[in-house]
Amino acid sequence: VLRSWFHGSAGLQSGSQSGFFPPVEGAMLPKGSFDNKVAFITGGGTGLGRAMTTTLSQLGAQCVIASRKLDVLQQTAEEISSQTGNKVHAVQCDVKDPQAVSQCVDQMESLTGLPDVIINNAAGNFVCPSEGLSPNAWRAITDIVLNGTAFVTLELGKRLIQKQKGASFLAITTIYAESGSGFVVPSASAKAGVDALYKSLAAEWGRYGHRFNIIQPGPIKTKGAFSRLDPTGVFEKEMIGRIPVGRLGRPAEIANLAAYISSDFATWMSGAVIRFDGGEYVWMAGEFNHLCCVTPEQWKTMEAMIRSTKGS
Amino acid sequence: VLRSWFHGSAGLQSGSQSGFFPPVEGAMLPKGSFDNKVAFITGGGTGLGRAMTTTLSQLGAQCVIASRKLDVLQQTAEEISSQTGNKVHAVQCDVKDPQAVSQCVDQMESLTGLPDVIINNAAGNFVCPSEGLSPNAWRAITDIVLNGTAFVTLELGKRLIQKQKGASFLAITTIYAESGSGFVVPSASAKAGVDALYKSLAAEWGRYGHRFNIIQPGPIKTKGAFSRLDPTGVFEKEMIGRIPVGRLGRPAEIANLAAYISSDFATWMSGAVIRFDGGEYVWMAGEFNHLCCVTPEQWKTMEAMIRSTKGS
Amino acid sequence: VLRSWFHGSAGLQSGSQSGFFPPVEGAMLPKGSFDNKVAFITGGGTGLGRAMTTTLSQLGAQCVIASRKLDVLQQTAEEISSQTGNKVHAVQCDVKDPQAVSQCVDQMESLTGLPDVIINNAAGNFVCPSEGLSPNAWRAITDIVLNGTAFVTLELGKRLIQKQKGASFLAITTIYAESGSGFVVPSASAKAGVDALYKSLAAEWGRYGHRFNIIQPGPIKTKGAFSRLDPTGVFEKEMIGRIPVGRLGRPAEIANLAAYISSDFATWMSGAVIRFDGGEYVWMAGEFNHLCCVTPEQWKTMEAMIRSTKGS
Amino acid sequence: VLRSWFHGSAGLQSGSQSGFFPPVEGAMLPKGSFDNKVAFITGGGTGLGRAMTTTLSQLGAQCVIASRKLDVLQQTAEEISSQTGNKVHAVQCDVKDPQAVSQCVDQMESLTGLPDVIINNAAGNFVCPSEGLSPNAWRAITDIVLNGTAFVTLELGKRLIQKQKGASFLAITTIYAESGSGFVVPSASAKAGVDALYKSLAAEWGRYGHRFNIIQPGPIKTKGAFSRLDPTGVFEKEMIGRIPVGRLGRPAEIANLAAYISSDFATWMSGAVIRFDGGEYVWMAGEFNHLCCVTPEQWKTMEAMIRSTKGS
Ligand SMILES: NC(=O)c1ccc[n+]([C@@H]2O[C@H](COP(=O)([O-])OP(=O)(O)OC[C@H]3O[C@@H](n4cnc5c(N)ncnc54)[C@H](OP(=O)(O)O)[C@@H]3O)[C@@H](O)[C@H]2O)c1
Ligand SMILES: NC(=O)c1ccc[n+]([C@@H]2O[C@H](COP(=O)([O-])OP(=O)(O)OC[C@H]3O[C@@H](n4cnc5c(N)ncnc54)[C@H](OP(=O)(O)O)[C@@H]3O)[C@@H](O)[C@H]2O)c1
Ligand SMILES: NC(=O)c1ccc[n+]([C@@H]2O[C@H](COP(=O)([O-])OP(=O)(O)OC[C@H]3O[C@@H](n4cnc5c(N)ncnc54)[C@H](OP(=O)(O)O)[C@@H]3O)[C@@H](O)[C@H]2O)c1
Ligand SMILES: NC(=O)c1ccc[n+]([C@@H]2O[C@H](COP(=O)([O-])OP(=O)(O)OC[C@H]3O[C@@H](n4cnc5c(N)ncnc54)[C@H](OP(=O)(O)O)[C@@H]3O)[C@@H](O)[C@H]2O)c1
Repeated sequence: VLRSWFHGSAGLQSGSQSGFFPPVEGAMLPKGSFDNKVAFITGGGTGLGRAMTTTLSQLGAQCVIASRKLDVLQQTAEEISSQTGNKVHAVQCDVKDPQAVSQCVDQMESLTGLPDVIINNAAGNFVCPSEGLSPNAWRAITDIVLNGTAFVTLELGKRLIQKQKGASFLAITTIYAESGSGFVVPSASAKAGVDALYKSLAAEWGRYGHRFNIIQPGPIKTKGAFSRLDPTGVFEKEMIGRIPVGRLGRPAEIANLAAYISSDFATWMSGAVIRFDGGEYVWMAGEFNHLCCVTPEQWKTMEAMIRSTKGS
Repeated sequence: VLRSWFHGSAGLQSGSQSGFFPPVEGAMLPKGSFDNKVAFITGGGTGLGRAMTTTLSQLGAQCVIASRKLDVLQQTAEEISSQTGNKVHAVQCDVKDPQAVSQCVDQMESLTGLPDVIINNAAGNFVCPSEGLSPNAWRAITDIVLNGTAFVTLELGKRLIQKQKGASFLAITTIYAESGSGFVVPSASAKAGVDALYKSLAAEWGRYGHRFNIIQPGPIKTKGAFSRLDPTGVFEKEMIGRIPVGRLGRPAEIANLAAYISSDFATWMSGAVIRFDGGEYVWMAGEFNHLCCVTPEQWKTMEAMIRSTKGS
Repeated sequence: VLRSWFHGSAGLQSGSQSGFFPPVEGAMLPKGSFDNKVAFITGGGTGLGRAMTTTLSQLGAQCVIASRKLDVLQQTAEEISSQTGNKVHAVQCDVKDPQAVSQCVDQMESLTGLPDVIINNAAGNFVCPSEGLSPNAWRAITDIVLNGTAFVTLELGKRLIQKQKGASFLAITTIYAESGSGFVVPSASAKAGVDALYKSLAAEWGRYGHRFNIIQPGPIKTKGAFSRLDPTGVFEKEMIGRIPVGRLGRPAEIANLAAYISSDFATWMSGAVIRFDGGEYVWMAGEFNHLCCVTPEQWKTMEAMIRSTKGS
Repeated sequence: VLRSWFHGSAGLQSGSQSGFFPPVEGAMLPKGSFDNKVAFITGGGTGLGRAMTTTLSQLGAQCVIASRKLDVLQQTAEEISSQTGNKVHAVQCDVKDPQAVSQCVDQMESLTGLPDVIINNAAGNFVCPSEGLSPNAWRAITDIVLNGTAFVTLELGKRLIQKQKGASFLAITTIYAESGSGFVVPSASAKAGVDALYKSLAAEWGRYGHRFNIIQPGPIKTKGAFSRLDPTGVFEKEMIGRIPVGRLGRPAEIANLAAYISSDFATWMSGAVIRFDGGEYVWMAGEFNHLCCVTPEQWKTMEAMIRSTKGS
């Protein structure tokens, strides 16, 4: 009888509690919070990058978005710009190529000048058993995620330092940068590297007027992430069952958090690592959380057994 | 000659960079963000608690502040209320006494109903070599910080669960909850306990509509903290020298962060632990950050020596 | 079809790999490693404490074990002593009572002198939904685990400092001290407090010749732990499915680790926090580890879908 | 008067306590612990790698050491072998080149068969302000440390999996992998990546009989590390002042720890991250540890001031 207690539930939550946690998707910061500011967002053409660009643009920033696919960037730039009335520039750039990064920053300098806000959001990832990873597959991910972030950050940092201009740097990593995770190992390693890069520079480059912070998102539905991490759609329900808040995140929610961190309201925030995941990480990591599906009746049985235990 | 390189500097930063990081002290969230919401703030009569109460009240919340000194609470309540036009209630409560906590919540229920926002901010602390700590001194701190936070959180949690009402819980701990720290050991232990309590409940009580988050502040000048942690004022300059952003934090800055976390803009945030410290923690913890005071000339010497090294 | 992929497996591992990881239960350190040393072990009468006492005694230490049940202690003391030929003393002590702790140390001083090795291993715990916790239930656990450890540590520390005697302190906490965990919340909070206490004193009391380290065990079968955490025995199989090494730990294994940390081979180890859990923690915490049960066929399907994805 | 309290001391410890913590440099494990085992150590020709090879060889292992400088490797191999009587093989390998890694493993397979013990110890590093880092300098470090470790680990892992052979993998990273650190940023990022790689594979590859653990060393005097991190020797004294144990570590001490982790005594250890640093990390990270140099007289003054404080 006992063995069947958890049959079918696998210690997951129902998700029905999500009604308590409705997403708010409008812009949070005061209008004009980014007036006269320039924001540079890698991977700004799609998914979370697009959402963050939209919010910064609404709040007054002039945005520059950069990634490999110029057509995607241009369409996004036009759509956002026509919605917000503020300029969004599209610049082609493969972040894993230091020369392309340098040329991209040249182009930005002539378009808008050096940025006040930098968001390193570009990344690549796919699920795969690690014994199937070739050295090239390893590098395909780490070159974008770790080297790409470093090249963008160092290139911009050097130029900003030379011009004695302050800036806010934000990196979008992932909750498993902390714990590691099987089946996404190059991404886990590279993202952990980015976390260390940003914590290191938060310490070293404060004296030049730079802040560095990190958001570690949990699952937020975007085509880019979900098509490569859950191609069959099988895992989505299971994922939700691990999230205490009972639902996936929305791009507009992370955009508000990113805007806050990048704004002058957060000038005292540096070296922070902010998990944004509906509670998924703490739920997974805590050894006894799967007891969520024990019923009140079963608790009574267990409590009685515990009480009757004598000695050790 | 080399031995005198760092004389006088002790590897600290000058703080002159703080001009890049001006504090913004106005309220950040949209007006009315907390309309029709009730917020309960322990230690709300002074320091950071007062600042958070002020911000929530400005944004529309009806606030209940609780601590031991009723006169202090009442004066704060009146001052804030007259400034914001929203009611602030003062309720006496020693959080380390479970019965007092229960009575305080009774009183709140009849005044305002159960809260939507809870901020566990009350604490005690003092600097002292650990070999000077009696069991009573140990308990004086841990009873307030750990047990007090637990009693408030459990009491409110149980009643909210029974009424099927969701809420946002926030705890104010400290950066040294993570690392530990000598000379403030009861506080370090109790605050680490609070961090674990909030991460645990973030996982367990999501299903009841509750979120739990943590802010770990670095040094923010308040009378309460500084008179007990730096009574002579000797350490303030040294502290600033360890902060990459070059200045102490301001109460209004943490109040904006706390308001964001407690608001509906952050309904997907739970189990987050947010360091808010101008970068102090990463600066202290990173082994080579004291090289900040090596001069360009000295770097040249060192670089030449490194280049000429052969083998291992 | 896809939805049934993981039916029955719930993303757990089989445990059949445990054959690769056979436990070795003999003593590891050189004979006589603890000759002329005195070791003090709280909770040394049962479970892990008994195993650690046995190993230290085998290696030459004179041991003092302390807990509430004198009869249990005495029987253990005799059994170990007759096995190893070294004295084991039983001293009654409820660690949550500072006076009892002081008297216990008095007794030890006259029996053996102050200890060279201290292991804080006594604890209490039970599983329970947090909304069922009364203030007394909260204190029943935290008083033993956090206050008890502090009282023992401070009492011994002060006396050792006064006698200018060095010592190694070790605390046995738990993997969920790091993450928190629902359903064992007082234990999670108190154990996190112990971690902070030991990290703090590692920093502060090095100058007095003291080292402080922590072992965070995963599930090791003892009557004391399992009767209160898994009274029905239902969860054991699930637990094993989360452990990469495929089996529970054995008391003798943690005893060897504890002996190493407490020995002169580890005089350079202080402030270390050593997870000892067969990999359970990293397995639980990593977001994609449940993909362990995807079959090779299914991986092929997924890979093909990922490859055919275009754009973001 | 107060401002001069800390003059000259800069909040550092004297190091005179090191007498309490004498290093023990003989081998710890029972003779023959690695009989019939093959160990593969990258960077085994010098420094810590050489020390770990020596210990494993003494304990019966047949060792293969690999790095770029074949002459250095060969000399070390002969010296160790003649001392221990067990074979040590020298194989040239630049770990950042996947083909070289594959050839090296081919060579090892024909010499000794696949290894039972793998220690990823090879690394590169130098101190430098981050604004001075070119993309090539960045890659010079990360290619060795992160990619090199990944290539070695994946190559060996795949072959071991195919042969259904279990193994213990150990990575040597650094305490600042956790916190990040300025002035060694490529190393900090790459080492953090290695930590994530090993935690990830601990979770994923347990089912194949593999364990993965990490040692994060603090400062242990080797020519390779110190000539590139402290070329002038100026910082050594300061470093010691930050180490609670009052001295640098010795290569033989980490060798004993590494041997334990790699041995069958530790088959239940996987996913562990072991700081081995004399307490340096917790000392640096803890906000109030610099109070170590407050004198008893000064404490009295401070205590009196704290006691006389009223209110907050
Ligand atoms: N969505 C989630 O659940 C989730 C969770 C955790 C973390 N994240 C992180 O959030 C960020 C955004 O992800 P997303 O979900 O929005 O997915 P996405 O839409 O696929 O975004 C990735 C972006 O990176 C760009 N990119 C990829 N390779 C690049 C390169 N070599 N150079 C320049 N740009 C490159 C892509 O544009 P091009 O193809 O045009 O180059 C794309 O715009 C990523 O860092 C991801 O790791 C997401
Ligand atoms: N300021 C900083 O630099 C800093 C840094 C890190 C963390 N923090 C944290 O921030 C929080 C606020 O500190 P603060 O700087 O604003 O100092 P504070 O003004 O001294 O605030 C502490 C508050 O706690 C209340 N309190 C103390 N014991 C209590 C008890 N037994 N029951 C109920 N209330 C009690 C006090 O009011 P009564 O005296 O009326 O009871 C007081 O209002 C604390 O949790 C502190 O640990 C502050
Ligand atoms: N076994 C596991 O899987 C596991 C996992 C993680 C952590 N741990 C930790 O490992 C340690 C040992 O646990 P165990 O599994 O060996 O269970 P155990 O046999 O129940 O050990 C607990 C010991 O603590 C003593 N104790 C309890 N309350 C005390 C008090 N007030 N004063 C003095 N001694 C007290 C008990 O003796 P009396 O009843 O005679 O007082 C008993 O000997 C604990 O710290 C536990 O949290 C165990
Ligand atoms: N000593 C410390 O205080 C300390 C502190 C923290 C961490 N660590 C870590 O401990 C490990 C050993 O350092 P150590 O102090 O012993 O310094 P070391 O003697 O310089 O050791 C580094 C070894 O790595 C090898 N190596 C470098 N590049 C390589 C490549 N591309 N391919 C293959 N092998 C390569 C070197 O040999 P070749 O030149 O022949 O290639 C050398 O034997 C490193 O991982 C280091 O990061 C040391």
